[in-house]
Amino acid sequence: MNITATFDALILADGLFPQRKQIQDLLHTAPVLVACDGATRHLLDIGKMPDWVVGDLDSLSDTLKTRLHDRLFHNPDQETNDLTKAVQFCVARGWRKLLIAGATGLREDHTLGNISLLLEYLPLVQSVQMISDFGVFTPIAQTSVFGSYVGQQISLFALSSQTRLSSQNLKYAIQNQGFRSWWQATLNEATADTFSIELHTPDAGLIVYQVW
Amino acid sequence: MNITATFDALILADGLFPQRKQIQDLLHTAPVLVACDGATRHLLDIGKMPDWVVGDLDSLSDTLKTRLHDRLFHNPDQETNDLTKAVQFCVARGWRKLLIAGATGLREDHTLGNISLLLEYLPLVQSVQMISDFGVFTPIAQTSVFGSYVGQQISLFALSSQTRLSSQNLKYAIQNQGFRSWWQATLNEATADTFSIELHTPDAGLIVYQVW
Repeated sequence: MNITATFDALILADGLFPQRKQIQDLLHTAPVLVACDGATRHLLDIGKMPDWVVGDLDSLSDTLKTRLHDRLFHNPDQETNDLTKAVQFCVARGWRKLLIAGATGLREDHTLGNISLLLEYLPLVQSVQMISDFGVFTPIAQTSVFGSYVGQQISLFALSSQTRLSSQNLKYAIQNQGFRSWWQATLNEATADTFSIELHTPDAGLIVYQVW
Repeated sequence: MNITATFDALILADGLFPQRKQIQDLLHTAPVLVACDGATRHLLDIGKMPDWVVGDLDSLSDTLKTRLHDRLFHNPDQETNDLTKAVQFCVARGWRKLLIAGATGLREDHTLGNISLLLEYLPLVQSVQMISDFGVFTPIAQTSVFGSYVGQQISLFALSSQTRLSSQNLKYAIQNQGFRSWWQATLNEATADTFSIELHTPDAGLIVYQVW
């Protein structure tokens, strides 16, 4: 398991609803569960009431709005997506260890956008991770150590080709290297129960992906 | 419809099998249908025999290998993924207008990797596009005009922050601009039945995404 051991709030975005049991368990046990607008219906389908619903609330029926009236947070900002609104909502309430689910898996442009937003959220929070049925994304802005298992597939995504990094305990060692395309640092492998990524250009940040 | 009007070969990768009728129709009518290894089983499930099966063939049972023996192309290269092997296979046979389906939707690192590979394929082919149930990716290395419809959502992905571009007929005009993060050029909108992207830094290339 690579997700942050504890988190203050779990945000469910309106992408593909997670089927993996571990994630559904987290939805049921999260200290605070924040649904992005349309994601609410998936929670109700599994018998779980969100603590908060954040967004422009366009995708909620009037019946649902009445039923959830004590937990709606309306933010009509058209310049920001619902995931960012939910993150801002949590940060404003002091919940600064965040876990995000349901943010990938449908429209690919939403998937790519949401993954890259992790690096925007990083300075606002104490920790943030994104989980899906397939893996866990962790944004980093400094040298970081990750729990892993031998053979775990690891992919790294630098948003800037200026980003330079080194690795320890990865099968294909990275030594002060940059990557010009997204595929270039994919499908690496952990060789121990931890691995580390050293960032030589912390300003740019990096997104680390671990399969479950 | 934004896919290239004609193509020589359709490659089915082993990501999420497309459910959209238009794509399944293309699988049935493609002049040549090339399956990446494990994608074969999905084709057989819909009663379609691939013309070629390319990859390391690890995911085919012996029974299936016997049944398909006249159309297997074994490429055991561990440094290249099955999608790239299929593209190389097509290019070697002179099929240089390519359409790719099933390359997104499961593991996110495969999705990101495959999308970025489009820019690697571009110099090898006459045209290449990637389609999913949600949208169509087109890589470009020069100023390009796209068919669209008013209100069609358009997202642009530059792999390099050095890439500079301008747009015509997009709701949020881009004028000699670069983008440092993937989300920054997402969720634009076509304002007419065509739009164009002018690339001021053709070396870097750009990936254009249009929702269906």
